Amino acid sequence: MNYQEIINRIFEEVKQMPDKGKVASYIPALAEVPDSKLGISVCMNSGEEFSVGDADEKFSIQSISKVFTLTLAMKMHADEIWKRVGREPSGNSFDSLVQLEYESGIPRNPFINAGALVITDSIFEGVGKTKKNLLQFIRSLSGNSNIYFDEEVADSEKQTGHRNRAVASFLKSYGNFVNSPDDVLDVYFHQCSIEMSCNDLSRAFLFLANSGIQPQSNTEIVNKRQAKRINALMLTCGTYNAVGDFAYYVGLPAKSGVGGGIVAVIPKLLSITAWSPGLNEQGNSLLASKVLELFTTYTGNSVF
Amino acid sequence: MNYQEIINRIFEEVKQMPDKGKVASYIPALAEVPDSKLGISVCMNSGEEFSVGDADEKFSIQSISKVFTLTLAMKMHADEIWKRVGREPSGNSFDSLVQLEYESGIPRNPFINAGALVITDSIFEGVGKTKKNLLQFIRSLSGNSNIYFDEEVADSEKQTGHRNRAVASFLKSYGNFVNSPDDVLDVYFHQCSIEMSCNDLSRAFLFLANSGIQPQSNTEIVNKRQAKRINALMLTCGTYNAVGDFAYYVGLPAKSGVGGGIVAVIPKLLSITAWSPGLNEQGNSLLASKVLELFTTYTGNSVF
Amino acid sequence: MNYQEIINRIFEEVKQMPDKGKVASYIPALAEVPDSKLGISVCMNSGEEFSVGDADEKFSIQSISKVFTLTLAMKMHADEIWKRVGREPSGNSFDSLVQLEYESGIPRNPFINAGALVITDSIFEGVGKTKKNLLQFIRSLSGNSNIYFDEEVADSEKQTGHRNRAVASFLKSYGNFVNSPDDVLDVYFHQCSIEMSCNDLSRAFLFLANSGIQPQSNTEIVNKRQAKRINALMLTCGTYNAVGDFAYYVGLPAKSGVGGGIVAVIPKLLSITAWSPGLNEQGNSLLASKVLELFTTYTGNSVF
Amino acid sequence: MNYQEIINRIFEEVKQMPDKGKVASYIPALAEVPDSKLGISVCMNSGEEFSVGDADEKFSIQSISKVFTLTLAMKMHADEIWKRVGREPSGNSFDSLVQLEYESGIPRNPFINAGALVITDSIFEGVGKTKKNLLQFIRSLSGNSNIYFDEEVADSEKQTGHRNRAVASFLKSYGNFVNSPDDVLDVYFHQCSIEMSCNDLSRAFLFLANSGIQPQSNTEIVNKRQAKRINALMLTCGTYNAVGDFAYYVGLPAKSGVGGGIVAVIPKLLSITAWSPGLNEQGNSLLASKVLELFTTYTGNSVF
Repeated sequence: MNYQEIINRIFEEVKQMPDKGKVASYIPALAEVPDSKLGISVCMNSGEEFSVGDADEKFSIQSISKVFTLTLAMKMHADEIWKRVGREPSGNSFDSLVQLEYESGIPRNPFINAGALVITDSIFEGVGKTKKNLLQFIRSLSGNSNIYFDEEVADSEKQTGHRNRAVASFLKSYGNFVNSPDDVLDVYFHQCSIEMSCNDLSRAFLFLANSGIQPQSNTEIVNKRQAKRINALMLTCGTYNAVGDFAYYVGLPAKSGVGGGIVAVIPKLLSITAWSPGLNEQGNSLLASKVLELFTTYTGNSVF
Repeated sequence: MNYQEIINRIFEEVKQMPDKGKVASYIPALAEVPDSKLGISVCMNSGEEFSVGDADEKFSIQSISKVFTLTLAMKMHADEIWKRVGREPSGNSFDSLVQLEYESGIPRNPFINAGALVITDSIFEGVGKTKKNLLQFIRSLSGNSNIYFDEEVADSEKQTGHRNRAVASFLKSYGNFVNSPDDVLDVYFHQCSIEMSCNDLSRAFLFLANSGIQPQSNTEIVNKRQAKRINALMLTCGTYNAVGDFAYYVGLPAKSGVGGGIVAVIPKLLSITAWSPGLNEQGNSLLASKVLELFTTYTGNSVF
Repeated sequence: MNYQEIINRIFEEVKQMPDKGKVASYIPALAEVPDSKLGISVCMNSGEEFSVGDADEKFSIQSISKVFTLTLAMKMHADEIWKRVGREPSGNSFDSLVQLEYESGIPRNPFINAGALVITDSIFEGVGKTKKNLLQFIRSLSGNSNIYFDEEVADSEKQTGHRNRAVASFLKSYGNFVNSPDDVLDVYFHQCSIEMSCNDLSRAFLFLANSGIQPQSNTEIVNKRQAKRINALMLTCGTYNAVGDFAYYVGLPAKSGVGGGIVAVIPKLLSITAWSPGLNEQGNSLLASKVLELFTTYTGNSVF
Repeated sequence: MNYQEIINRIFEEVKQMPDKGKVASYIPALAEVPDSKLGISVCMNSGEEFSVGDADEKFSIQSISKVFTLTLAMKMHADEIWKRVGREPSGNSFDSLVQLEYESGIPRNPFINAGALVITDSIFEGVGKTKKNLLQFIRSLSGNSNIYFDEEVADSEKQTGHRNRAVASFLKSYGNFVNSPDDVLDVYFHQCSIEMSCNDLSRAFLFLANSGIQPQSNTEIVNKRQAKRINALMLTCGTYNAVGDFAYYVGLPAKSGVGGGIVAVIPKLLSITAWSPGLNEQGNSLLASKVLELFTTYTGNSVF
């Protein structure tokens, strides 16, 4: 079977599963997405692409955006960034403040909310400019100039974002936050609201499967060591409190978002995105997790 | 010896102690207060008053204000208030968020910052009106119409108040905060900035020594049960993380503030305020603690 | 009304309350005690004694024993003991290990289990000798040579005492435990099993109402400062996680045990013990708490 | 370069590094091992073996033994074992009790001490029999009948093992410990004391590189899913609090021990063991980590 046949088969299998998880309901714009949506997209370092289902439909990338901002921060600050944020699994909820207090304002890793806020603070150059830079970076990574913020989602996030506001002020109280919390949160709520399709995401993540070099353009996005670092962080910290189970069932570096997308990378080979809006208890897409699990099973391509 | 002789003697003893503690330095207006200041004031239920030293000089009451807002909240909401805040010692730092997270947004008591913010939120009726009500209440308690906010202090608190901002947003994320964090914090930073003298404070706290009835005016401020509640809370939670030692050395219900003031109550008899700006490691005034300790020693009047 | 009339009235009122709490059931010997038991005993510094109900019936004193071992440790080590144990409320469950880990093996106070185990370790001079010394001390305090360990209770505690065993080994891992955990636990389980009546306990605690001097014999048990320290510790840490509410409802220094006994002290006046085996949610006797609350209400003698 | 040349080159490079880390000193038998020791051993699924330096010298495997007991437990209990222990990174120190208390006695994963103790408890069939079974299992995995406990090490561990004793009793207090803590600890201290060489360990771990089947004998040790599970657990939890950095620098599933050994697996290809007794701050061998990092660099064989 070639990859197209494999993802077709997976699509059919997963599509008919009765339990589709629970669509995130904390903001209306997410709650309204039908749980029947399912898309799969594979991009290979070689240039080949395969997709099935709703792979061209845009959805809210949410926490997947943390990989883009981390990449920008590593480009901008190199290893200096690790003075402000750790690189280890947290063992706590993604929005917990407990560990942050015990560890004096240094978040455990860039994928828990506190760490992601520090990262966004570190690339902040004014609200407008930072938002523009970020969008430009993602457009260039995905080769799609048609990528935008969803202002309605950004606005809803802002309305309900008290916990993130608490985290930002808490970081500031420890001196680990340079700019105005409100300004950085403005960018942060926008980055989470970015809309991309499975195809966009697979293309945008391909540099991580190719040692930091975007194969489409032969451009170095980050160096080889940095690409390895990001992949290692995704595997150990990329899927909330389900990192251990995800490593077992899927066995790939991956980043998930509450919009239902999960992007994974098979180093030296390909990137793959699956999207289905229903979430499991840990906040990862139930069906997208299943898609990725079956993909590593059918291709025999997990890292373990 | 009568009370005047006793406080004179204590004043002389304490005045010459070489270690005066460390004046709070997180905002300029506090840092500038000379550590040589020392005032003592005693007000008796009987109407007699005694004072010595800088007892008429105003200082920043800071956390002592939490007793006034709590009193207002108890008048306004009676026992309903205890649905939003606990009544037990926290065992943690006054500005910790750890316990708040483990206990889902219900602060342990009204004297840690989180609890005090809930209390201020509960009496909030608009920034201007709440500030006006509070000032009026304190003026009437102390019989001094000349009590004001120190706008410079309030402004400094606001500049450096990231931790309190974090706490307010955190409470809001748990649904235990009704109004806008910024608005309530505006009131909160103002209440901490109120300037009162030892004499003002002793007069204002006298109702707690008199079962809830202000002896000066024979007015019931709170009922007997509520007065007992406030005294019990002061003894078990009123002096930050030094409650146990304070109970031992002083043995009176008391509330301290980082401005260096401490007000204590001997139920059925008197209220006493001591002020000296230098703090000990727990954040209580070093010399004011000593004054109160000697007062209970010389009068034999501790509760233990 | 004199004290006898007061406690008679309280006895009648409390006796008929329908909710008697829940008798401790983790060991059979405690579970078997009928919840209808109720005793009250008052001993005055003046020598007068009053009692009603089952005031002469022995029950398991459990955690009340922590006051006796603390007193022995203070006699033996004076202020040195505070290097090994703190003096502040813990804000955590009496058997929690969390705080102990964060604070590197120094228990918060002598009344949580970890602190009590350090105290027993500090007075340890061999299993047999320590047990004998303790019994002798308590017999002499209560003037009753007929006080014994309940070996069945001690044995049951040992069978179910895994948590205490964990605490002792944990303390040892921090170097804050001198002797063999098993040996000290043997003493500890025995001290908890001691059987005393309300009358025994009131007599034994009277030195704490009399500035450290046993009025019956005019013997100094501890000095005045130490008696004040113990009373302050009882008020701030003596009733598990209900210290704040207990201070409010009762307003006296007191120590409770899961056997249903509570001993309280009115400094300079009297000691009072109430016993009823049914516990409230915090682990304090429901009816004994009520007895003490009514006693301070009817006599107007609370410290607040 | 073939593998022999690669490990020779790495050996030369690492051998001369001036900083050799700090040899574990909590027990004499470990403290005495010279920090100049360095061994590397590679075993391939194909049957080829390569080694250099002290690859035949036995050392104390310590926590590496947790992989063997986990394997036995998975064989014995299949997925039932996951009712008693989790599969996620802990984010806390390997010997912390805090998380255990918050999560009611269910350890986060089988490689922190609490989890390892539960695992040993789960395979316990009497001290003698369990020790015998374990030794037999390891001998058969490594094809070396000459593997023994180091009784001196086991005895020292027992002398200093208060923390582990605390953990076992704590687990027992939550009902997550079936047998006598002392008996299980006896086995546990022995399993940690097992002496094996790099060659022994590489051979013993080869089934994890070969989907659960020992290539030497073509025997299924665990099924394919279980092998994947163990590898995933090693990558996400196998190297104490350095999991994130280890994933980045080395990028292989691995398990370390304070004796200075680290065994890693390249799925579908080989197992590799490096040994050098000096540890880094996280408790992993400094030079063995370096060896593995260089190995993945020179062979290009990391999972990322």
